[in-house]
Amino acid sequence: MMHAMRAFLICLLGVALAGAQSPPEPWRFQAIVHVDRSPHARLRGVPVRAVRMGDGFWSSRLRINVERSIPTLLALLEQHGIVDNFRRVSGRKQVERRGPLYTDSDIYKWMEAAAFVLQSGDRPDLRAAIDRLTEEIVAAQEPSGYLNTYYAGDRADKRFTEMYRSHELYCLGHLLQAAIAYYRATGDRKLLDSGIRFANYLAGNFGPQKQPALTGHPELEMALVELYRTTGDKRYLDFAGYLLSGVERERLKLQDSQLRYMFSGKPFTSRTQLEGHAVRAMYACSGAADYFLDSGDPAYRKTLETLWRDMVAHKLYITGGVGSRASGEAFGEPYELPNAQAYTESCAAIGNFMWNWRMLMATGEARFADMMERALYNGINSGMSLSGTLYCYRNPLESNGEKIRNEWYDTTCCPPNLERTLAALPGYLYSTSADGVYVNFYHNSDLDWRLWNGAGLKLRQSTGYPWSNSVEIIVSPEQAAQFSVYLRIPAWSARTRLNVNGEPVSPAPKPGEYFQIRRLWKPGDRVSMSVDMTPRLTQANPRVRENIGRVAVERGPLVYCLEQMDQSGERSIFDASLPAGSGQEFQAEFRRDLLDGVLVLRHPGIFTESPLSDEPLYQPFPKPARKQARAELIFVPYYAWANRGPSAMQVWIPVAETR
Amino acid sequence: MMHAMRAFLICLLGVALAGAQSPPEPWRFQAIVHVDRSPHARLRGVPVRAVRMGDGFWSSRLRINVERSIPTLLALLEQHGIVDNFRRVSGRKQVERRGPLYTDSDIYKWMEAAAFVLQSGDRPDLRAAIDRLTEEIVAAQEPSGYLNTYYAGDRADKRFTEMYRSHELYCLGHLLQAAIAYYRATGDRKLLDSGIRFANYLAGNFGPQKQPALTGHPELEMALVELYRTTGDKRYLDFAGYLLSGVERERLKLQDSQLRYMFSGKPFTSRTQLEGHAVRAMYACSGAADYFLDSGDPAYRKTLETLWRDMVAHKLYITGGVGSRASGEAFGEPYELPNAQAYTESCAAIGNFMWNWRMLMATGEARFADMMERALYNGINSGMSLSGTLYCYRNPLESNGEKIRNEWYDTTCCPPNLERTLAALPGYLYSTSADGVYVNFYHNSDLDWRLWNGAGLKLRQSTGYPWSNSVEIIVSPEQAAQFSVYLRIPAWSARTRLNVNGEPVSPAPKPGEYFQIRRLWKPGDRVSMSVDMTPRLTQANPRVRENIGRVAVERGPLVYCLEQMDQSGERSIFDASLPAGSGQEFQAEFRRDLLDGVLVLRHPGIFTESPLSDEPLYQPFPKPARKQARAELIFVPYYAWANRGPSAMQVWIPVAETR
Repeated sequence: MMHAMRAFLICLLGVALAGAQSPPEPWRFQAIVHVDRSPHARLRGVPVRAVRMGDGFWSSRLRINVERSIPTLLALLEQHGIVDNFRRVSGRKQVERRGPLYTDSDIYKWMEAAAFVLQSGDRPDLRAAIDRLTEEIVAAQEPSGYLNTYYAGDRADKRFTEMYRSHELYCLGHLLQAAIAYYRATGDRKLLDSGIRFANYLAGNFGPQKQPALTGHPELEMALVELYRTTGDKRYLDFAGYLLSGVERERLKLQDSQLRYMFSGKPFTSRTQLEGHAVRAMYACSGAADYFLDSGDPAYRKTLETLWRDMVAHKLYITGGVGSRASGEAFGEPYELPNAQAYTESCAAIGNFMWNWRMLMATGEARFADMMERALYNGINSGMSLSGTLYCYRNPLESNGEKIRNEWYDTTCCPPNLERTLAALPGYLYSTSADGVYVNFYHNSDLDWRLWNGAGLKLRQSTGYPWSNSVEIIVSPEQAAQFSVYLRIPAWSARTRLNVNGEPVSPAPKPGEYFQIRRLWKPGDRVSMSVDMTPRLTQANPRVRENIGRVAVERGPLVYCLEQMDQSGERSIFDASLPAGSGQEFQAEFRRDLLDGVLVLRHPGIFTESPLSDEPLYQPFPKPARKQARAELIFVPYYAWANRGPSAMQVWIPVAETR
Repeated sequence: MMHAMRAFLICLLGVALAGAQSPPEPWRFQAIVHVDRSPHARLRGVPVRAVRMGDGFWSSRLRINVERSIPTLLALLEQHGIVDNFRRVSGRKQVERRGPLYTDSDIYKWMEAAAFVLQSGDRPDLRAAIDRLTEEIVAAQEPSGYLNTYYAGDRADKRFTEMYRSHELYCLGHLLQAAIAYYRATGDRKLLDSGIRFANYLAGNFGPQKQPALTGHPELEMALVELYRTTGDKRYLDFAGYLLSGVERERLKLQDSQLRYMFSGKPFTSRTQLEGHAVRAMYACSGAADYFLDSGDPAYRKTLETLWRDMVAHKLYITGGVGSRASGEAFGEPYELPNAQAYTESCAAIGNFMWNWRMLMATGEARFADMMERALYNGINSGMSLSGTLYCYRNPLESNGEKIRNEWYDTTCCPPNLERTLAALPGYLYSTSADGVYVNFYHNSDLDWRLWNGAGLKLRQSTGYPWSNSVEIIVSPEQAAQFSVYLRIPAWSARTRLNVNGEPVSPAPKPGEYFQIRRLWKPGDRVSMSVDMTPRLTQANPRVRENIGRVAVERGPLVYCLEQMDQSGERSIFDASLPAGSGQEFQAEFRRDLLDGVLVLRHPGIFTESPLSDEPLYQPFPKPARKQARAELIFVPYYAWANRGPSAMQVWIPVAETR
């Protein structure tokens, strides 16, 4: 259907949008991050609607997201007065404002999630809900364009006077992202025009020769670049550049500690390390990457590379989570990666995912897609319960069993962030380049899209990934054509086999690359890939002090963990270790009945005969060897932890290692 | 001189104090914590003035404390307006109030430090300074007795309305402690009477049938018990009991999180673990121990034992510091003892020291003196620079080299707390019991005091402790008499030899006990002790995740560390480890030129040939063995770190251990 309708729609939309500055692409064909006209994008995304997800690992999560997560969160937002905050400003309800000053963004993020669902197919209930909310929001907007439920009434005179904390620009950023997602879902401009009014107010009154502006919590940068991509109005790109230029330090009297914490307020290109509030840093990097994609400023590219390497070498959890410290929700020092105390906010892992998507489009390099996969399957995936109604704010890698999943947080940034990420997921599976198509992630799915030259292309992917190791892709161009299919060879797959129509490719694929298959593709050509799903033990750099002498268990893209309830007997998982020389003795078993279906790993383990908690805190070294008992250890995927009530859990298991 | 003057002074003071309720002892003969009439004290302290410190480890610190720390801190307190805050309330100066709401306590703690100096001998300059401050303070006191520079003027209507944060009672506690110390130094009651007026105001208006009271930051409890001991007025003991009873939860609408954080507000005897703000918890335990010493309530004794065991088994740093988390300055979970991120506030180590002093007096058990020694030589001692003018607020056990010592903190609780602890130090060396005298700590010193039966007793202690392993004590009773001399056998001394007049004692002393020598002591009898100063390696319980596979180096009471600047070559201390089977190869060298004179330890070490920072954050396990280089490691005492500028440092060194 899409091929047949494309010409018609392009024509139709050209008419519908005649009033706006000519947009680069019709709304239906815009991707999550729409870089089709961005001169420095090597890859382009595909629209969410171009991908139909089949059954598999993500499909049940996506269904629960639509059927349970999104509806229950809207009810909670209503119940906690977050929508009433708009009604209060519009005068429709006489109520106290409720919640922290950034709650507007939670509504917007919810709307963006619902809008991404609509990009996959119509849902009249969600569409009606968004329209109702849009109406409430627009009613609260001032004629000037200003829109914020906190800086209203008595607090109106504080507008733009405390941008280091006000989240006014942050909320605008989320308004724009929601509006753009809904526009791309339906072509409806009402919310988009509302966002544009506020954006125009900002661009008209703030800037180098005007009043000083600052994103105290970066977010608006990427939204403005996306607004530029949506409208073609370059003022938005320029204003994003102004925000990233960080030139208002003097005028706003910002302190060093604020510049660190906010990851804003000084030139982005002067940064050399990740520090401060992790979500702010990830959003700033995402915005800067967006800005690079359209501006091509090499100083941004260089800075982004420096910061990415800092993260990967010093500040990344094995789950793809970032942000070690509760205090300031912050990055720590290099190698400061505590497990039980890890903060690793769900939003920070999502920020990492968003940043790497933009890096992937700028470079086409597989390391960024590998990072996205790590974050998605582990540090993001852990953030939502299997039931879809409980959320982690923190995602620690070890726990004594405290309650970690809650239905509601007063700062409820993570729940709608998780929902919008899942709702948009189909749009991340594939990309296109000047010479072909990229398969970024593996899941049963159908792509129905086109190459850059306009030639239609369908891909059908069949796989049991991440449980099984084989992927089959049927490549069906409209007509036989010479182009490349790029498959991401996961960095963790030591040995990957690739066949085209049954013939092995050569040279053999290497881990951590996009493997290019350039040929004359004919409809029905078949690519088969098998990756190495052997469970593996991973160690951390000994500079990560808490992980010395410990290993993590991984299989495919999944990090595993020990949960106390899966182990037999009374012994504590904190008295367990893996014997030296481990790694060859894993037994895998798919358990359909467990945790909505997971592959469980079993391995011989060692427990101390007596609990370590019976021993003193300090003892002379060396002490006589402890008596040991052998017992099987049962590992489950990390993302699924704490879905059976609070539970002791650990990812990093001691092992007898000689350093 | 003291013997000759005693009778005269008792007589003189009896007259001077005729107006007060008869105090239990003349001021000159009262100890730091004066339990001579406390029915549940097994040991009693000796007055600070009864001990003259000779040369040695502590004497230079004590001299610098008097000559530099105390004068410079007073100048800083004036400079930052902390004294002016009183002048503002008395109307003597028209200035803004400066500093956080608890600054009054910093002045009081400074005065207490100066008063302890005066207990060792007159210093007219310090006496004049205290008198001047007293005059300023009393001028700011209201006729009702209320005294606080924050809750004055516009804020007067907030008095006692926010006790969970107000520090009003905390400041009164420090006022009383300063007043008592000065009274015991000079007999001057002016500040004491001021404190009593406020205490009477409190006891008169607050309590079960009156208004509800709460120590949001415990401190007043121990001060009130000491006031009871000083005045004999039982209302103060009872009010301390009321505060500890924690019955005002309902009336003050306290939340669970506040009860945890404050370590106050619920019955002290209902507590089963250390949690919340570490200094508050340590002060609450000190106050509860004081209350036990005078009330004998066994529920307190039991709770104190439970909490002490929780600390020792789960929450104690090897330095005697406590309080792992920056967030909330709090205790963490059991075994949550990070090194670089350790908060370990100097005040918390001092609180631990104060609590254990009271436990020692209640029990006579050496484990409490061992704990005091650990905290004193390490976690407290590190808090003040060798120059006496720079202070640590945090005392981490590992550092990348951030600036840790500062002259001033806006919350400047630690500097005067360190100063008062050092100034009082002579008063901790010895105790008495019903049957003799206890030697708690080892240092060149002369004790000139008496047994409980009034018989005069002098001890002369000669030692190079903690650098050398021998201690000689000449015991000189007024007349030959049967009594016991108890020597603390440090828990870390595996083999201790003891002679009396050249004859070995039997049975051999055991580590961690007070060894009793009961005999007919004649003037000039000589006790010789030699402890085991062999450097030792200590390991932590593997439940302390960050210390798995690492050891700490200790010698005598001192914890050692690696500082980067002492190592030869360019290699990082974070690339160093000790070879498995270590421990026999230490070489000790006293370096008079280094760090005001320290004993340095050298040991063969292993460095990775390439820096670990060149390796990826995560790698497959096992990886091929790293190339190694051998080089000597040079250890210095932990307390002396960061005295040569910011420096990378670590206490826990990786070692190749088989778990």
